[in-house]
Amino acid sequence: MNYPSKLIEDAVEEISKLPGIGKKTALRLALHLLKREEQQTTQLAEALVSLRQKTRYCRQCHTISDEELCHICASPRRDSSLICVVEDTRDVLAIENTGQYRGLYHVLGGLINPLEGIGPAELQVESLIERVAQSGEEIREVVLALSPTMQGDTTSFYLTKRLRSFPLKITTIARGIPIGGDLEYADEITLGRSIVGRISYE
Amino acid sequence: MNYPSKLIEDAVEEISKLPGIGKKTALRLALHLLKREEQQTTQLAEALVSLRQKTRYCRQCHTISDEELCHICASPRRDSSLICVVEDTRDVLAIENTGQYRGLYHVLGGLINPLEGIGPAELQVESLIERVAQSGEEIREVVLALSPTMQGDTTSFYLTKRLRSFPLKITTIARGIPIGGDLEYADEITLGRSIVGRISYE
Repeated sequence: MNYPSKLIEDAVEEISKLPGIGKKTALRLALHLLKREEQQTTQLAEALVSLRQKTRYCRQCHTISDEELCHICASPRRDSSLICVVEDTRDVLAIENTGQYRGLYHVLGGLINPLEGIGPAELQVESLIERVAQSGEEIREVVLALSPTMQGDTTSFYLTKRLRSFPLKITTIARGIPIGGDLEYADEITLGRSIVGRISYE
Repeated sequence: MNYPSKLIEDAVEEISKLPGIGKKTALRLALHLLKREEQQTTQLAEALVSLRQKTRYCRQCHTISDEELCHICASPRRDSSLICVVEDTRDVLAIENTGQYRGLYHVLGGLINPLEGIGPAELQVESLIERVAQSGEEIREVVLALSPTMQGDTTSFYLTKRLRSFPLKITTIARGIPIGGDLEYADEITLGRSIVGRISYE
């Protein structure tokens, strides 16, 4: 496409580097900003730059945090014998929103993906092992809450192998038919797992 | 949702002001930027700010342009007796991409929308009338290429009324079944219009 100005072309180029945003959407967003107050654009730009430059991560669980220790790790009301391992901060937010979990977290920062050159060394794996080792048996359970994908399963398998030598329980989140989900529309692997892993009424 | 840091919250707030981007997508984009090089974020921010601060508009047709007169208005090979009236620069790009139009443009910068307080005074209407008046009958045809919505039709109706006193032809783009479109799936208004406005094989 021939853009009417170099400025538009540059903006479209940069915006379309974001995931899920193509050239057409990028152009729509750029033209939208041109129609709005200049202040809106500068505020957006400043928010993005300070996000990128100033964001810090909790030194214990590596989730995004304003403080050195995040409010979850710092809270005395959380169960520090329980650690939930997740891929990124988004998962922490999702699990926190359920209100069903009172333990701590450990954010890996990704999943093992040999095709993209991401191995355990690129993730917060060593710090997890160290955290478990240094806790002196305080940590009794590690919940692996990774996506049920090839990468997630590989990472879970690797972590299970590394954690096996410690005296703790290793669990994973339940797989099955989503609440409100219709059996008819469930894929056969999910349905199969939900039958194998059936739960008794007690 | 409780965001893990003020920086994330601010960024999500600003990103989600963009059209078609909700809080969830905004969070995904913010976390994406955190995973990428810092340079990508600064380049994006700079492109947006210079787009907003430096963009200029053609003094004749009001399309976005690097020069005072855009390359279409400045071209001696364009038919200056023909003016196509469009809502915004995106429409200019779309029509240019077809390669079917050799006239000039006039960008209104919006459509008449009383509910949002947008009247003719907020749009480039007077400059269109002036342009036609000052051309000394050089302009022979004005094509109204506005969206077939309530706002588009209102604007077309208003412009037709204003332009009626000039010795020129006022046309609008053809409405009908899209090429490759299936009659079965066309809505009844479009199908109706395409029958009323049927074209004879010549």
